[in-house]
Amino acid sequence: MKIAVWQTGSADLDRLRARALEAAAEGARLLVTPEAFTSGYAVPGVADLAQAVDGPWHDAVAEIAAEAGLAILYGFPERDGDRVFNSAALVDTDGSVLALHHKCHLYGDVDLSTYTPGDGFTALAELDGLTVGIAICYDVEFPETVRTLALVGADLVAVPTALMRPYEVVARTLVPARAYENQVYLAYANRSGSEGDLVYCGESCVVGPDGADLARAGSGDELLLAEIDPARLAASRADNTHLGDRRPELYGALVTGEEGAR
Amino acid sequence: MKIAVWQTGSADLDRLRARALEAAAEGARLLVTPEAFTSGYAVPGVADLAQAVDGPWHDAVAEIAAEAGLAILYGFPERDGDRVFNSAALVDTDGSVLALHHKCHLYGDVDLSTYTPGDGFTALAELDGLTVGIAICYDVEFPETVRTLALVGADLVAVPTALMRPYEVVARTLVPARAYENQVYLAYANRSGSEGDLVYCGESCVVGPDGADLARAGSGDELLLAEIDPARLAASRADNTHLGDRRPELYGALVTGEEGAR
Repeated sequence: MKIAVWQTGSADLDRLRARALEAAAEGARLLVTPEAFTSGYAVPGVADLAQAVDGPWHDAVAEIAAEAGLAILYGFPERDGDRVFNSAALVDTDGSVLALHHKCHLYGDVDLSTYTPGDGFTALAELDGLTVGIAICYDVEFPETVRTLALVGADLVAVPTALMRPYEVVARTLVPARAYENQVYLAYANRSGSEGDLVYCGESCVVGPDGADLARAGSGDELLLAEIDPARLAASRADNTHLGDRRPELYGALVTGEEGAR
Repeated sequence: MKIAVWQTGSADLDRLRARALEAAAEGARLLVTPEAFTSGYAVPGVADLAQAVDGPWHDAVAEIAAEAGLAILYGFPERDGDRVFNSAALVDTDGSVLALHHKCHLYGDVDLSTYTPGDGFTALAELDGLTVGIAICYDVEFPETVRTLALVGADLVAVPTALMRPYEVVARTLVPARAYENQVYLAYANRSGSEGDLVYCGESCVVGPDGADLARAGSGDELLLAEIDPARLAASRADNTHLGDRRPELYGALVTGEEGAR
């Protein structure tokens, strides 16, 4: 299954249409956009822009997905009654929402002043026989997140993000580590450009289960393409048996509170 | 606190003495050796070489620690009644064993045919006000291991290892990720040279809490030196609040059996 990652600072739905058509012409079945794609991330009053998961953004993205013939994972601020989530929805070509994730690990002033945290890592969808899991930005820095997704069957973890300088270590080191230690493919879709004082570092990437880059962006607007190969995944998992070699009976400190573990 | 990492394929205690004196002359308080230092790792019949934690190897290492005036963490096959553990003991200058770790995640035919797995990550010692935790080789590839050590207070995680080609990704990517995601220093002491069909890849390293190398070896016999700086650690933890931002209530799948999580 071919996938595409669009690194961008744009929230322009006409540009999304053009990139989706470009990705589909290359054979992509899935296009991943950055965190808060539809609104921008560090935008004053972003909570006031939030929409329901079946709101106008959904309808516009669904129309593009149908026209291009691929699924689209897009980040957006989600209005749900009194709450606003930092969300990512995976919309298929028929407009159905295959999976919806609420960011669970909130980062910094923008997140903490705006969003209600999510309550788990259960957003999974099947695409062409592959199981796709979703995390958002800071979620992926916690090994517990991708481990959980791998344990419930993810083959590919897709991560809309808004990673700013000077945290390049996340894109260069943590993301490849997550792929290798969990034997999954990982697609990391970052913003580009800047918002206020934040300068995004780009480096969107698709990493294989061997921890090696299949594709990696520079700092600007860029469309990445990569092949997610079930046979390569199976071969890598046969050689790297981390998931089966775990000792969950020894990991109790991970689920007690921090105070409990100390 | 300055530490030293000796990357070597030698089991020669006279060479250990020389390296310990060299490290101490540079101001080191701790010297870390590779996995199975005293015996070799992929050695036929290695179980027959195993010694008790207070056996002749201990006495020899303790004498060197006293003479050089530094603590030594050394890997060895440990005889304990009917069981043999893949162990690492931290011996101080007075001969006391400050901490003893039994490898918990066994890897491949050598480990599985020889050793009883350990039952936790509780080997911690205080050295000059810093808390040192211990893991061995494959243990460090599991994020749960270093996370547990960090949660119980480790500032520095020391890892005797025997990493062979083509698994350089562990030394280059997983080890720096462990340091950054847990906000600890990590010292990774690999074997060099070869044993049977195994060719060790070297790349021993000391990594800071920012994920950047403080020192990294090539493929041969080499002594690394690095400074573990409590002030730098505190500053890094103030900026990178991963440990405090965890959501342990969401991590239940990590401690159920793999089947339970699926």
